[in-house]
Amino acid sequence: MNFASDNSYAAHPAVLTAMADANSGAVMGYGADPVTARAEAAIRDLLEAPEAVVRFVATGTAANALVCAQLSPSFGRIYCHDDAHIETSECAAPEFFSHGAKLVTLPGEGGRIDAATLAQTLQVGAGVGLNGGRSALVSITNATEWGTVYDPDQVAALASVAHAAGLPLHMDGARFANAVATLGCSPADLTWRAGVDALCLGGTKNGAMGAEAMVFFDPARAEGFDYRRKQSGHVMSKNRYLAAQMLALATDGLWLDLAHRANTKAQVLGQAVVDGGGRLLQPVQSNGVFAAIPKAAHDRAQAAGVLYHLWPDKTVQGADPVPLRLVTAWDTPDADVAAMAAILRS
Amino acid sequence: MNFASDNSYAAHPAVLTAMADANSGAVMGYGADPVTARAEAAIRDLLEAPEAVVRFVATGTAANALVCAQLSPSFGRIYCHDDAHIETSECAAPEFFSHGAKLVTLPGEGGRIDAATLAQTLQVGAGVGLNGGRSALVSITNATEWGTVYDPDQVAALASVAHAAGLPLHMDGARFANAVATLGCSPADLTWRAGVDALCLGGTKNGAMGAEAMVFFDPARAEGFDYRRKQSGHVMSKNRYLAAQMLALATDGLWLDLAHRANTKAQVLGQAVVDGGGRLLQPVQSNGVFAAIPKAAHDRAQAAGVLYHLWPDKTVQGADPVPLRLVTAWDTPDADVAAMAAILRS
Amino acid sequence: MNFASDNSYAAHPAVLTAMADANSGAVMGYGADPVTARAEAAIRDLLEAPEAVVRFVATGTAANALVCAQLSPSFGRIYCHDDAHIETSECAAPEFFSHGAKLVTLPGEGGRIDAATLAQTLQVGAGVGLNGGRSALVSITNATEWGTVYDPDQVAALASVAHAAGLPLHMDGARFANAVATLGCSPADLTWRAGVDALCLGGTKNGAMGAEAMVFFDPARAEGFDYRRKQSGHVMSKNRYLAAQMLALATDGLWLDLAHRANTKAQVLGQAVVDGGGRLLQPVQSNGVFAAIPKAAHDRAQAAGVLYHLWPDKTVQGADPVPLRLVTAWDTPDADVAAMAAILRS
Amino acid sequence: MNFASDNSYAAHPAVLTAMADANSGAVMGYGADPVTARAEAAIRDLLEAPEAVVRFVATGTAANALVCAQLSPSFGRIYCHDDAHIETSECAAPEFFSHGAKLVTLPGEGGRIDAATLAQTLQVGAGVGLNGGRSALVSITNATEWGTVYDPDQVAALASVAHAAGLPLHMDGARFANAVATLGCSPADLTWRAGVDALCLGGTKNGAMGAEAMVFFDPARAEGFDYRRKQSGHVMSKNRYLAAQMLALATDGLWLDLAHRANTKAQVLGQAVVDGGGRLLQPVQSNGVFAAIPKAAHDRAQAAGVLYHLWPDKTVQGADPVPLRLVTAWDTPDADVAAMAAILRS
Repeated sequence: MNFASDNSYAAHPAVLTAMADANSGAVMGYGADPVTARAEAAIRDLLEAPEAVVRFVATGTAANALVCAQLSPSFGRIYCHDDAHIETSECAAPEFFSHGAKLVTLPGEGGRIDAATLAQTLQVGAGVGLNGGRSALVSITNATEWGTVYDPDQVAALASVAHAAGLPLHMDGARFANAVATLGCSPADLTWRAGVDALCLGGTKNGAMGAEAMVFFDPARAEGFDYRRKQSGHVMSKNRYLAAQMLALATDGLWLDLAHRANTKAQVLGQAVVDGGGRLLQPVQSNGVFAAIPKAAHDRAQAAGVLYHLWPDKTVQGADPVPLRLVTAWDTPDADVAAMAAILRS
Repeated sequence: MNFASDNSYAAHPAVLTAMADANSGAVMGYGADPVTARAEAAIRDLLEAPEAVVRFVATGTAANALVCAQLSPSFGRIYCHDDAHIETSECAAPEFFSHGAKLVTLPGEGGRIDAATLAQTLQVGAGVGLNGGRSALVSITNATEWGTVYDPDQVAALASVAHAAGLPLHMDGARFANAVATLGCSPADLTWRAGVDALCLGGTKNGAMGAEAMVFFDPARAEGFDYRRKQSGHVMSKNRYLAAQMLALATDGLWLDLAHRANTKAQVLGQAVVDGGGRLLQPVQSNGVFAAIPKAAHDRAQAAGVLYHLWPDKTVQGADPVPLRLVTAWDTPDADVAAMAAILRS
Repeated sequence: MNFASDNSYAAHPAVLTAMADANSGAVMGYGADPVTARAEAAIRDLLEAPEAVVRFVATGTAANALVCAQLSPSFGRIYCHDDAHIETSECAAPEFFSHGAKLVTLPGEGGRIDAATLAQTLQVGAGVGLNGGRSALVSITNATEWGTVYDPDQVAALASVAHAAGLPLHMDGARFANAVATLGCSPADLTWRAGVDALCLGGTKNGAMGAEAMVFFDPARAEGFDYRRKQSGHVMSKNRYLAAQMLALATDGLWLDLAHRANTKAQVLGQAVVDGGGRLLQPVQSNGVFAAIPKAAHDRAQAAGVLYHLWPDKTVQGADPVPLRLVTAWDTPDADVAAMAAILRS
Repeated sequence: MNFASDNSYAAHPAVLTAMADANSGAVMGYGADPVTARAEAAIRDLLEAPEAVVRFVATGTAANALVCAQLSPSFGRIYCHDDAHIETSECAAPEFFSHGAKLVTLPGEGGRIDAATLAQTLQVGAGVGLNGGRSALVSITNATEWGTVYDPDQVAALASVAHAAGLPLHMDGARFANAVATLGCSPADLTWRAGVDALCLGGTKNGAMGAEAMVFFDPARAEGFDYRRKQSGHVMSKNRYLAAQMLALATDGLWLDLAHRANTKAQVLGQAVVDGGGRLLQPVQSNGVFAAIPKAAHDRAQAAGVLYHLWPDKTVQGADPVPLRLVTAWDTPDADVAAMAAILRS
């Protein structure tokens, strides 16, 4: 039983099929092939953004770091949540790609920044002068690192604050599909209509092998971006196989279907936590369950060989209740979910 | 008909099968999965290098740039051929990854550096002091960017010069398989036994979708390398799909078989060039044909819609004879090869 | 009246004299001159560190950033106080020079990190894996950004924790002289005898025009450092003028004398704060006074045109009492100190 | 006798006096002081460029590298001469500051690029696509590294080619004063009126201790530049001492007077080379003499302890005639010049 991460799980068969379908004949490399063109168009359609620039890379870290570097100079300040993936989990890739941008982190309940905190922080940031660097970008994650979501109004409030300060808004959407599945809104409502300027739309955690889309809603913001991607080694020469993955996910709503499946499994686990006397640290709004469960339940899970991460890190070892994170994927076996739910309830 | 690049072509079915075989169940991410372990072992076996550190990335630019950055400080001088891929075709990725290393290029017949030229250049480099930076690395490409190969003795001569100056030797082996197929030597003879310290062993141009191995023969040289790879966004969370590609190529000699096929097709085209009154700019020793052909033949090829690159670039347009590059892949259709040969001969 | 910063003030006449003395005849450039040799020796003597590598640069930001980059790879984690100058006031220079190192900040009373907090943070840092980067360096500032000092025992406790984790300890000593003047200890006791591995010893804030020494107590840690300094444009071709400044300060204890003068002036202001009903936010242990003073006193000072910074930034405008920072220099006029003291007391 | 470099020599007394004059009282730091304002204005006046943005740094490497990084993205191609200082003598600082820009070097007689060669190279550069990076900047040195000068027409021809390709033109003017002194033109004619977009105007080699001006004729090109300078540690907190040096040079034509003196001494040496049967490798047009002299003369000079560099490097040791470089400064003793001339003639 593996609830450690959604990237522990496999690719959807339709993804593999799309790759196989792309696997014949000679095409021009580096993205000048028809599959790439179709996949980029499919993402634009999905987002109702016919003018957007869409590009693909194979990892989420690359996607976020490239977009951060595109939107921030080396002396820029990038505002994000204390627990943002770009801050905690990308080995300082945004700093590396941007050549030194400073991540300025903000607290916020449930992994979400609120607009008032952002406004206050940007006010401070506007006064730091040469010493502190120049405010450059606001970045949020949706669904967040705590499994919660920003709804379109919350995004719009943040975008409004960012734009008032002259800053673009980036959304790390490694689990964007899970957020949309929960909110039931349109992808456009959650992004550009709410003021998002650049989106990283994840495929890897949602049924792809390794594929992420980067979207600049205003093409002017993508100026020179292909060079940046190339220089960092993230232009695939046989790009069709990367594009095929995103194309498969964007076809017939597969991306949303897979996210729904993962979210549903998380709901089952979340309910089991509560039933078993544990406490949800955050409401379950995507495919992650953040909970504190009785040590006895944790011990049973360990004895059964269940894999998951203590939260926020191993230093909580020995606590009672035990804080932890359970992540589900579209293909987490229902039997495993049921078995874990039983452990949590017992 | 496409002779533009080997990366215009497809992945071998066995590669796709290996990815499909890897596509079930939950495994730990970031390379801590059994497919990755098997693939790394397969590469070590292939190279008869049981102690080597092997890692995978999805692009050749990433592979080369990461290895360069691992082996050179920002103030390092990296010696390579005037026409080295790292100099001409990677958008200054080595400079980006290393934070400023200087590529010092050397002339050399057929894309090859010779040992005497290298020795002389290193002697100059030893005297440039703070102004010129510190000599750090020698990098060669095998097969070269001109389709020729270094044999083990030539590699050993260069390694000897590099090592005498205290520098490691890197081999960009994007087409390493093609070189081995031509030389008929063992991979070990062409690398570590000849003094190569780090190898980039390409899969992408040889039947993979996008997979390259980086090999450090002395594990000490790989110190911290996984962090470097992660920070640049080149650690795949679902690494099994990357590893599966290299595993397929390394199984039952597929990699060599595919390279043989591509090389054979190039031989056919090379002979046709000569037969048709053209001139080979270099002997055909891998899967690339560099030739000057009569303008009439070029015009016929253009009329037939054949894709290939003028060489070294478009500014030769209008020349007679026309210098060009023809590249073959394992799956370039034999009919296309025959048709192009006929055009060249006519 | 200017209490805004110690770098608002002038250079000591002896510094100017030393520069004039150096200003004749031809010498070799880039530090290969006799004044540089003497100045480096003088700093080694001052620190009782005959083996140390000493180099000079013109700015404190360069000194800190170069040392950080020397001691941390791009994927390193550099631990420092929340209010460390390298975090708040150097425009992300450490990140720029190191190509992406992550500054991990720790809270701590009075601008000081304590050993227990550090130990706990390093324990977390040891578990973050590829995602979080590799622990590389601990950096402390002495005197701190809050005007307090670490004594040798406190430094030793931190060094012990850092070394136990395999990390070197860096001391940002932009106001090292002020700390030594307060503590009355030997520079060696406060640095290498307490476990400091690298020191930035400031001159600029203490009577120089623009001169800082960087000291690596173990020469092995300085490997390649001159190239790093050169590549960042911080090797002066006419280095004698930079070295002359540090030589003047190191001669006949001038550096300590100047620091004593500045510290004494700060004591006067600190007492006046208390006398006037204000509150010292931190004890006055160097040349900075951090206090909250009655708004009426602040208004009087503003009316008198006194320059100083609100603390930590302008967003405190309007508070009562008003938090602020007053900084003194060796040459802050005593009349100004007295006048400001009167305002504070009134 | 020292003809090794102009930076072996001293600062002019007027420079020291200006620094002493600036050395009193408290001013705001980081360039917000009256001396800096006056010095920036003086440089604008000197260049008849009232709108230009002028900033100072302490080293020529910093000046060039900062301007290059300001005008080129990391994926940019910077075109310069094979022997450009930014290519050969700055330890890859432009690459470091820009995070990877590629210096593409061009041959050219006398250290000068000609417009036809540039046009041809830019045409190639326009076709290299993602592989080769994006053309970003043309950089020339005036006076050149071979002691020759570009006149305003030559500069204008290059600017015209650069601008036609959409690229700005940078002039490395470490010895700009020497060029102006030779040409007798106005600084404006040699720079912005001829199409130069950014100038590094050297002081260090011309009587300063360590001071260079960076000039952006169009303020829009300086956007964010102060942050860039700060992040690289090149904003002096006590900027008045840096500015005072440039102010002294710009006052009453001192900069031109000093350059004239140095140039005159070089003329004497150049004539002596010819008289003594040596050969001038380039005409003497500034303060450098590049010549091949009889080995006997070289041996005599060595015996007399004269310092100078073999050219282009030590590997010419043993040649007859001996190629070398002799550099003069404003304060190279006339007696030394006479003595060396006698050696050359004998």
